[in-house]
Amino acid sequence: MRLSELGEFGLIDLIRAASVRCQIPGRTPWRELVLGIGDDAAAWQSGDHIELATTDTLVQSIHFDLGLITWKELGWKALAVNLSDIAAMGGIPKYALLSLVLPAELKVKDVSDFVDSFEHMATEFGVAIVGGNVATAPSIVITVTIIGCSRGKTVLERSTASPGEQIAVTGYVGSSAAGLEMLRGRTVPDPEARYVLRQAHLKPVPRVTEGQILIEQGVRTAIDISDGLVADLDHICESSKVNATLNMEQVPVHPVVTKYFPNHQELALSGGEDYELLFTADRATVTRVKQVLSCPVTVVGDITKEELPTRVLVVDSKGTIIPYKRGGWDHFKNGVSHLTFT
Amino acid sequence: MRLSELGEFGLIDLIRAASVRCQIPGRTPWRELVLGIGDDAAAWQSGDHIELATTDTLVQSIHFDLGLITWKELGWKALAVNLSDIAAMGGIPKYALLSLVLPAELKVKDVSDFVDSFEHMATEFGVAIVGGNVATAPSIVITVTIIGCSRGKTVLERSTASPGEQIAVTGYVGSSAAGLEMLRGRTVPDPEARYVLRQAHLKPVPRVTEGQILIEQGVRTAIDISDGLVADLDHICESSKVNATLNMEQVPVHPVVTKYFPNHQELALSGGEDYELLFTADRATVTRVKQVLSCPVTVVGDITKEELPTRVLVVDSKGTIIPYKRGGWDHFKNGVSHLTFT
Repeated sequence: MRLSELGEFGLIDLIRAASVRCQIPGRTPWRELVLGIGDDAAAWQSGDHIELATTDTLVQSIHFDLGLITWKELGWKALAVNLSDIAAMGGIPKYALLSLVLPAELKVKDVSDFVDSFEHMATEFGVAIVGGNVATAPSIVITVTIIGCSRGKTVLERSTASPGEQIAVTGYVGSSAAGLEMLRGRTVPDPEARYVLRQAHLKPVPRVTEGQILIEQGVRTAIDISDGLVADLDHICESSKVNATLNMEQVPVHPVVTKYFPNHQELALSGGEDYELLFTADRATVTRVKQVLSCPVTVVGDITKEELPTRVLVVDSKGTIIPYKRGGWDHFKNGVSHLTFT
Repeated sequence: MRLSELGEFGLIDLIRAASVRCQIPGRTPWRELVLGIGDDAAAWQSGDHIELATTDTLVQSIHFDLGLITWKELGWKALAVNLSDIAAMGGIPKYALLSLVLPAELKVKDVSDFVDSFEHMATEFGVAIVGGNVATAPSIVITVTIIGCSRGKTVLERSTASPGEQIAVTGYVGSSAAGLEMLRGRTVPDPEARYVLRQAHLKPVPRVTEGQILIEQGVRTAIDISDGLVADLDHICESSKVNATLNMEQVPVHPVVTKYFPNHQELALSGGEDYELLFTADRATVTRVKQVLSCPVTVVGDITKEELPTRVLVVDSKGTIIPYKRGGWDHFKNGVSHLTFT
């Protein structure tokens, strides 16, 4: 059997099984472990707070195309996708390790642009670059690890959603995927719209402050939208053992996406890489969050009781089910996504 | 200018400069930072102990050859090289993140062997596998991050060596490089010798317990031998602003290496990948360490006052200088090494 048949989720299950086998319950470090494989970041108790660690890899020609992204944008994005995992835990990012696998014939100027941009973003988010690794290879692989901590005594999790809770999302979804379509050739005549879409795909802003505010306001459950709205909602449902109903007409799509992309519904549901936060909470909490956060917050559906096999039901405003074909991106089978199993 | 002209140390300097630029002294996380780029692991204060983080990458055809190493050995080595960085700090390894970039056509059995072996080693060293990342690419890149902590209030550093101290090394040096020469075709008729050499190169045992004992016994300065004895001693000298005299005739070389490798002196001085500990301390401390450690500990030279340009002088027992051409492995210029800049 090949990895292409096993698929990425099969591979993660294989690693998860090994991770479980090596546990010695009651002994350090397992005694202190709060969350292992299966959330946006690993989490463990350290004194009166929780420490967080997450890692994400960008592979040339798989996750990025140097014909479409500048080195400065790549430096930004490499850190952003990792900060987003800390944001999804409501945590404070603190330390970054940067592992660069680079071809020897690269221009120093390009790598320098990458590092400068990485540093600017680190400064903006108060992150110290404390180490890493360099190696050479024919194509580029960038692995970033972020270590952070909880602001208070808790973190946001995937496994704490309850039936009756509302499902909400920050910002807009589908803009990143629309940006990628544009970069690959779809015509968008309006320069301002082009700017919005390019930024959405190449310079996503991780919702670090927003994640911390969610925790403060009493939210317990969140994930960042990296795989796509439905796929990430499905991760919450699977971890929390619940189902979800998603109202398509409430899903927040940026006006330029609606205007220039006839497939905006598909982009919004399964586009991925938006790095917005998807969270669940009771109505009163969501209302408070809406008042406190400065970014748009939109209720897109409800958590319901577990009823397999379809964990996420997409409906219109009348409650009619919209047939939705799960995108089913699988790294090893047929596609690409950022699949982090912390 | 290309990376091949800048070299790996130039690239690390570029990242180090960015790391310095983004510092805001007095503010978290910089206020808590004990060691950033330039030691075996990054270190920061966390309550009454010091936390440690290190990352290391293995690239197919650069760091390993699947014609020479089994998947089980690769799983072991991927974790071992990282644990060795924690050992060089005298720390306790606790959490591992595993980032796998793998071709989709790989056999599941092979990856499963890798993961099983990684898990066995994690169990042996009390490390919890808590997360990671999977992605696909035409060739294999394995990045491991280890997070650990100090046993007491201090860690071993590279920058604390003083003139007058002795230089000592655990175990033997040059065995790993000899093992690689054998795997590449040099005849070693004795099966037992073949076993010793294969293990030395493919299944190095990180000196985790030994590192912790060094700290307990009052040693302050250490590094693990990954680049080679002279190169790693040079790292200590550079960080500590001292020079060193290395007595070639005292360097511990395993009998099978002396027997089958006419170039054993070169292998011992610049072979690398031994993952032994190289440390400095006063004579009384070294004597205590020799009594306490169960592995061989050999004094190989002395730390002297700084006197550039040659930081490490190799001499024979009469004090005559042995002309030594620094191996000068450079990832981007002409060779390969594990270059970690934590």
